[in-house]
Amino acid sequence: MSKEKKFVEEITAMEDDFAQWYTDVVKKADLVDYASVRGSMIIRPYGYAIWENIRDVLDQKIKETGHENVYMPLFIPESLLQKEKDHIEGFAPEVAWVTHGGSEELAERLCVRPTSEVLFCEHYADIIHSYRDLPKLYNQWSNVVRWEKTTRPFLRSLEFLWQEGHTCHATEEDASEETERMLEVYATVCEEYLAIPVIRGKKTEKEKFAGANFTLTIESLMHDGKALQSGTSHYLGTGFAEAFGIQYTDKNGKLQYVHQTSWGITTRLIGALIMVHGDNRGLVLPPKIAPTQVMIVPIAQHKEGVLDKAYELKDQLKKLARVGIDASDKTPGWKFSESEMKGIPLRLEIGPKDIEKGQVVLVRRDTNEKTTVAMSELEAKIPAILEDIQAKLFEKAKSHREKKTSVAKNMDEFKSRLADNPGFIKAMWCGDLACENYIKDETAATSRCIPFEQEKVADTCVCCEKEAKHLVYWAKAY
Amino acid sequence: MSKEKKFVEEITAMEDDFAQWYTDVVKKADLVDYASVRGSMIIRPYGYAIWENIRDVLDQKIKETGHENVYMPLFIPESLLQKEKDHIEGFAPEVAWVTHGGSEELAERLCVRPTSEVLFCEHYADIIHSYRDLPKLYNQWSNVVRWEKTTRPFLRSLEFLWQEGHTCHATEEDASEETERMLEVYATVCEEYLAIPVIRGKKTEKEKFAGANFTLTIESLMHDGKALQSGTSHYLGTGFAEAFGIQYTDKNGKLQYVHQTSWGITTRLIGALIMVHGDNRGLVLPPKIAPTQVMIVPIAQHKEGVLDKAYELKDQLKKLARVGIDASDKTPGWKFSESEMKGIPLRLEIGPKDIEKGQVVLVRRDTNEKTTVAMSELEAKIPAILEDIQAKLFEKAKSHREKKTSVAKNMDEFKSRLADNPGFIKAMWCGDLACENYIKDETAATSRCIPFEQEKVADTCVCCEKEAKHLVYWAKAY
Repeated sequence: MSKEKKFVEEITAMEDDFAQWYTDVVKKADLVDYASVRGSMIIRPYGYAIWENIRDVLDQKIKETGHENVYMPLFIPESLLQKEKDHIEGFAPEVAWVTHGGSEELAERLCVRPTSEVLFCEHYADIIHSYRDLPKLYNQWSNVVRWEKTTRPFLRSLEFLWQEGHTCHATEEDASEETERMLEVYATVCEEYLAIPVIRGKKTEKEKFAGANFTLTIESLMHDGKALQSGTSHYLGTGFAEAFGIQYTDKNGKLQYVHQTSWGITTRLIGALIMVHGDNRGLVLPPKIAPTQVMIVPIAQHKEGVLDKAYELKDQLKKLARVGIDASDKTPGWKFSESEMKGIPLRLEIGPKDIEKGQVVLVRRDTNEKTTVAMSELEAKIPAILEDIQAKLFEKAKSHREKKTSVAKNMDEFKSRLADNPGFIKAMWCGDLACENYIKDETAATSRCIPFEQEKVADTCVCCEKEAKHLVYWAKAY
Repeated sequence: MSKEKKFVEEITAMEDDFAQWYTDVVKKADLVDYASVRGSMIIRPYGYAIWENIRDVLDQKIKETGHENVYMPLFIPESLLQKEKDHIEGFAPEVAWVTHGGSEELAERLCVRPTSEVLFCEHYADIIHSYRDLPKLYNQWSNVVRWEKTTRPFLRSLEFLWQEGHTCHATEEDASEETERMLEVYATVCEEYLAIPVIRGKKTEKEKFAGANFTLTIESLMHDGKALQSGTSHYLGTGFAEAFGIQYTDKNGKLQYVHQTSWGITTRLIGALIMVHGDNRGLVLPPKIAPTQVMIVPIAQHKEGVLDKAYELKDQLKKLARVGIDASDKTPGWKFSESEMKGIPLRLEIGPKDIEKGQVVLVRRDTNEKTTVAMSELEAKIPAILEDIQAKLFEKAKSHREKKTSVAKNMDEFKSRLADNPGFIKAMWCGDLACENYIKDETAATSRCIPFEQEKVADTCVCCEKEAKHLVYWAKAY
């Protein structure tokens, strides 16, 4: 039993040190390993299987909304990156530069893509000529690189995986609708599959994407009260189109610039899963994206018939759920801990006595609730329990967020709420950058978004005495 | 009609200029566009959809054979790449180097992965300790970069997409079996899905992978008689394990080095599809990997009921096949040409007269054969025709390869066969590097493989008078 104890003890409690708890879960649940390049991560099979599930769900929705996948080059010539002024200013400090190919020094250095707007724009200028060519709805699944100083697995790493959508439209209206549509797709994936409730809203001018007219965002709240930007969708206006000459002939024969959008979600979402649902026994995964939904653990598996029955159950249940079996020579207690650490939604225990009685024991990862179920009822019960886990995880995360959301009417309230109950602060804002900067300097909280669902919690800005323009969600953030 | 003519005329005939024909197809079938980085390609929606189909088929087989997907970093520190001597010698001349991150010069430069052996090895050294940890069967889907001087879309590009498998085993026997198993998976995907017949064999010492004990390969033959290496599987022995310290404790408590394999296929296979099946009207795709298997072209679509019926058919047939419809305002002739250029296996024409008679016209892309089929029979006929197209494409490619395969017993025969009927030359070889080099210098043909199916077409080496050791397939190659 000492081995089992050790397995569990290696995890720091989240109340003691949240950052260390996160790192422990990431390592102990076999999601990630470190590589010899600073800030890069190895995504291990279990972590990658979660990513594949997120990707498959989102890819289907991206295709259902009429988008096509493409693949753009990894490298961007420096001169191309510089074509849109705001964009290069935003990204230049954090790109990796290739200066040599083989033994030759390059005439022009190449940046490793931090995002691919300029590549898509160059291509669009080549293939868009007429209103008949619009809309162009492209998406790409790829790796990108940002030269971050401090890094953490999934949350902020030198390289990450993502999808980036890039679209061209005839009118501002069409492009704005697309920007909203894709934000809603992200919100749906987060809420219905990842069981992560999100606040939908608009970024302030200060926080918007480099080169965008406006940025929409979904913001989620972690266990420690910090916010995580979970997906963004940008309306780019005609700025890139003007810089790259992406023009089409409209129905009246007149040349027009296209209106563009871009939008992305990343492997960051795995970090959100960990910090929204995880507990001191490790990861907790929502069934819809769990690589294994039910883990069968045979008890006294050396006894005759136990393993046979366990495999038979696996075969029977595999049409209902993604079922695994742990038939290794570890002790049951060790297997329980491992299955819990990996956040597998449901554990199915089966031993000689259960077989005699024609039953099994089911243990929910989220509530630790243990129930004995007749084998004949498994096919009805398991899908229902998985659905219930999915729903309860969402409800729990939502109620957690509500508990951690406070209202502040002035800076004193702002500071004391943030200190007493770290989380979202709902507060009015006049719209001035000076107030936004002041709040950040004073509290380390940033504006997360101007939510679509506006309320008026006060008449004046939380920071100055001017008239309030917007309700804003503020928080410290990852 | 002048527009239609133009569309078709823009393609160079393959007999006139095969390289230009290839480039024309790649561009006109909307597979690829060029980007501003020399030698890089934009894979357009149609090209990427083909890659997704190849990837999905292969990914399923990789998983069925027990492998798990992971993701390794893009960058490799120079010192790590240098750990295995043969490997670095093979790859150093063709890697891209990152020397700056943001505005800082890096203390150690990073290479953009040309392949990921060393990254996997570093990780394996970290996670493998006991015989219980073996085998480790990992795969990765990613982009890699090789700084090639002359490039062609899909065939040889600065960056390409691929999968790379990397596995560790307890014994040489296990690892050799894995090397063979994965070659056979590749051969199956090529033959059964891509309809490309392949020669399975072993590379000579000269042609093997840098750092491998031996390399297995599948080689296919293009329309112009040049060979294309279509997939390779390497047995790495314990060389990497020794360089990286990947050791496990065996059942007797003794430390042992693991035996490793690696294997990969790339977006090159799209090049093979083009050059094996294509013709002077464009691409010809095998149904199993065609993004659209049946294209419905309405005739006189402005007439009442035509478009309705066409969409109704699309809905009816979509459970049987991947069905598209071209309801654009182009002329039917133009639509025919486009559908042919894109290699869509089957065209379904439906006009007012057909509707009256309760029939449609089906046109096969491979044979151009036109048949009138009653609508009531479509659900039975279409799957059968698609299967027949798949089978016929394979047979045709195989018979083409056989026609283009000659036997040579001496160098005079070798040269005249290669000149008269460019393709594979089957000839005996003594096993000496000198002869292999001589043949390459004299004829530009290289040894493609020592086929598993050996024959004895002569007693002595085709080049010298020494005793023959192996039958070898030789060819000029991409």
